[in-house]
Formats: sequence, structure tokens, C-alpha cells
Amino acid sequence: MEKDAIILNTPHNPLGKVYTKEELQIIADLCIKYDTLCISDEVYEWLVYSGNKHFKIATFPGMWERTITIGSAGKTFSVTGWKIGWSIGPNHLIKHLQTIQQNTIYTCATPLQEALAQAFWIDIKRMDDPECYFNSLPKELEVKRDRMVCLLESVGLKAIVPDGGYFIIADVSLLDADLSDMKDNEPYDYKFVKWMTKNKKLSAIPVSAFCNSETKLQFEKFVRFCFIKKDSTLDAAEEIIRAWNMQKS
Amino acid sequence: MEKDAIILNTPHNPLGKVYTKEELQIIADLCIKYDTLCISDEVYEWLVYSGNKHFKIATFPGMWERTITIGSAGKTFSVTGWKIGWSIGPNHLIKHLQTIQQNTIYTCATPLQEALAQAFWIDIKRMDDPECYFNSLPKELEVKRDRMVCLLESVGLKAIVPDGGYFIIADVSLLDADLSDMKDNEPYDYKFVKWMTKNKKLSAIPVSAFCNSETKLQFEKFVRFCFIKKDSTLDAAEEIIRAWNMQKS
Ligand SMILES: Cc1ncc(COP(=O)(O)O)c(C=O)c1O
Ligand SMILES: Cc1ncc(COP(=O)(O)O)c(C=O)c1O
Repeated sequence: MEKDAIILNTPHNPLGKVYTKEELQIIADLCIKYDTLCISDEVYEWLVYSGNKHFKIATFPGMWERTITIGSAGKTFSVTGWKIGWSIGPNHLIKHLQTIQQNTIYTCATPLQEALAQAFWIDIKRMDDPECYFNSLPKELEVKRDRMVCLLESVGLKAIVPDGGYFIIADVSLLDADLSDMKDNEPYDYKFVKWMTKNKKLSAIPVSAFCNSETKLQFEKFVRFCFIKKDSTLDAAEEIIRAWNMQKS
Repeated sequence: MEKDAIILNTPHNPLGKVYTKEELQIIADLCIKYDTLCISDEVYEWLVYSGNKHFKIATFPGMWERTITIGSAGKTFSVTGWKIGWSIGPNHLIKHLQTIQQNTIYTCATPLQEALAQAFWIDIKRMDDPECYFNSLPKELEVKRDRMVCLLESVGLKAIVPDGGYFIIADVSLLDADLSDMKDNEPYDYKFVKWMTKNKKLSAIPVSAFCNSETKLQFEKFVRFCFIKKDSTLDAAEEIIRAWNMQKS
């Protein structure tokens, strides 16, 4: 039996959007109305900033049996590169993922799996404690986010303040970067990022890299910065940006 | 500039063959004559049994600059599932692998990488010691290999004694397995393995699974057993095989 499926991602990479309860309800209603599966990528579920709240669409009435919720050790415990995660869902869906796992990934490294289990065990027992990583990490990151927004705006990069996740998108079209030296056969954001990396020693990801050919054009004025960085790295970024500002004026 | 490449695998999975120095010299001469790259998969390099010796084709005159040698932590230190390995070769070849790594695998888990480095460090310092894992593992496995060969032959499965690696191929065509209950649209070895798994609780891999459509037919009388097993597992296999033998006579 064939079924349609949608992929939902909240908090969203690269947009930083956290879907509200009302928005998720609209999506849930449509999933139920059209008998659609929902693959809900919630790898940034713990990284949500003041004024926002993460909701799991699988908990909405009628959604559990049609939803696969995806999580990541890399994002939850800041161990990007471990490439271990989990899928939560009803048996009739998960059993197919098991077949795919067995025939693609095949296995995962058990020491990492054990470390992840221990990490969960420690933090689940202290969910109300500010030391709990689920609480301390977003608090720490919110400060970095706010700092990064100020920094970017100080140099004329209009930032879109993210509700969650650890990326900031900035509109770079207002900035008069001289890209005349760059090769011409690329979207604007690719050229901008290469120019900035080379000339300013700051790096970012072109947002149109996330888009298909139909939507690429709408996004080529945006680049994505990452703010889950040591303070010393943000200090270095600040210095670069200050110097950049001086140069302009 | 386009180049041809061959893939060499010694010790070989599933055949268990370890190429001799003379055989490798013939392959090396051909690689040089036809200016061909050699991707040498040597993941079982330490698992070589009495009377055989592993040679690295990259050490043959004229081969270093055209060879990429591949190794595996999983095979070297019996941690299958860690999926960490290494490639050794000249910079002009390795740099392309780095590009591929960056764009596919992207990264590997650093704790496992560190563990692997430590393991190498320990065993490289005691290469002449029988306790060195590079020495102790093949010794331990050779006993298991010999035991497995006897076991298989006792039930009429003609085994091809491997020079290296931890797999044994056996010709199962002499055995009169009654496969009349099995679905008919599969190669003989697939049916045999399913039958044996179900009826004898012994598992193996059909060798034709390793073959392309041109060679499949030549190999469907063979199945591959794995003998890197705890002695208690081999004991259990022995019991099953004994009972199977009794039934036949
Ligand atoms: C939205 C989203 N989903 C999934 C992933 C994959 O996470 P992992 O590499 O930990 O499996 C990422 C990583 O960047 C991501 O941003
Ligand atoms: C010949 C050969 N090469 C490479 C591999 C892959 O090894 P790993 O999974 O450790 O990367 C295997 C694993 O079965 C193998 O048999």
C-alpha cells in the first residue's frame, strides 16, 4: 500500500523557525485528512530560545500512528560527527526503518551507543536542574545567538533571529560586497560566501545550497552562520567584523 | 586525465585466498605495463595462517605511486561495526580520497579514532611479543578455522581451507539437502542457506551474493561460514552438526 509522506523539520535548519502549536495543528489536520505519513526531524528539539516552545507533532491526536520522530546524539549532546540518532514511532512504521538500517548503515559503534545511553540516563534524572544539559545548552547558546545577531547587524548583514537551532540566516544583499573578482557561473550567495571566506576569513554556508532549482533564486541573498562556537572564536569573529566596519566607513 | 584501476583484495573475502609474492608480482607488472591504479583492500592483512604470508603490493617496485592500500579497525582489532579504517598512498591519490570523504562520510567519531590510535600504539611497540594482537589473533583463529573445517567436513560440506581471513567457503552440492519446500525463484545457495538457517539453526552467507550476474551461476554451490566466534558458539554449532549427521545415517 503506497502512502504519501511529508518531512517536517522543527526547529528548522537553516531557517531557525520553531513551529507553533497552532501551526503544527494545521499540519496534523492535513496529515489526517489526506492520510499522510509525517517524518518529523526534531534533531534540534532541545535548542529552543526564550519565548518559543518545541512541540512534538507525534503527540497530537491521531498523529502517533502516522509519525516517525527523528533525533540526533550529535545535536542533543553537541557531539556532531558521532552520527548516532534515533527514530521514534509505532511498530508498523519502525519495522521498515529496521529493514533499511540492516541493509544500509548495517550497524553502529556500540561504545558510542552506550555513551549516548549513559548521557540520557544522567540528564533525564535531572530534568528540572539548570545543570541538566537540555537546560544549560540552550541558555548558553541564546547568549551566543544574541551576540552574533548584534555582530552581523553591525556590519550591515540583516540577521533573521532564530527561534531555535544554532544557525542564523542573514540577508547579505544590502551589503555592497565587491564580487567582481568572483567567477560568474554561481548563485550570488555562493559567490558572497567564497568572497567573505577569502577576504574576511569568516565562513558561512550559502542558503541556496539547501534549495531545489525552483526555489534557489528566492534564497540566494541569504547566507547561514553557525553560532555554536567557543567564545574565543566569536571574539575573533568580532574583531574581523570590527575591522571590516572601519574599512567601510 | 582518466585512468583505469583494479581492485585487489588479499586476504580475500569470501575466498580466503592470500596472494603469493609471485602472483602479486604478476599483477604489479601488469599495473605498470598498462599504467593502471591499484586499490588494494587489505583489511584482513593480519589474519594470515601458517604457511602463508601477506605482502603489500604497494611495496613492490613501481607500485607505491599507483596504489591505495585500505585497512580497517573493525578487522584489525575485532571491532566490526566501528566502521573506521584508513587509506595509505601517495599524496596525489590520497588528496582525492579526502575530497570524497569530505563530501560523503564527512567526518568520523573522534573517540573511536583515538581508541584506534591507542590500540595501534600499544601493539606496534610489542610486535615481537606473542601477546601482540597482530600475533595472538591469527593464532587463536587458526585453531577455530581447523575446528570448523573438520566440523563442516563431518557433515558432508566440502570446505575450502582458507589461507587467511575469517571465512570458510564450503561446497554444499554434495550434500543432499531437501530444498523442495523452498521458493524456486532463487539461486541454489540462497535456498540452501535459508533451509539450513530454518531447519538446522546454523547460518551462512550464499556466495553468489558476492557475484555479478555473469559469474553467479559458477558460485551457487558454495556458502560462506564465519569462524570468528566464541568457543561456546562453535560448541553449539558442533552439537547441531552432530545431530544432523545422526539423522542422515
Ligand atoms: C535538520 C537536521 N536533521 C538531521 C541532521 C543530521 O544529524 P546527524 O548528523 O547527527 O545525524 C542535521 C545535521 O546537520 C540537521 O541539521
Ligand atoms: C574485503 C573487505 N573489505 C572491506 C570491508 C569493510 O570493512 P569495514 O566495515 O571495517 O570498513 C570488509 C568487511 O566485511 C571486507 O570483507
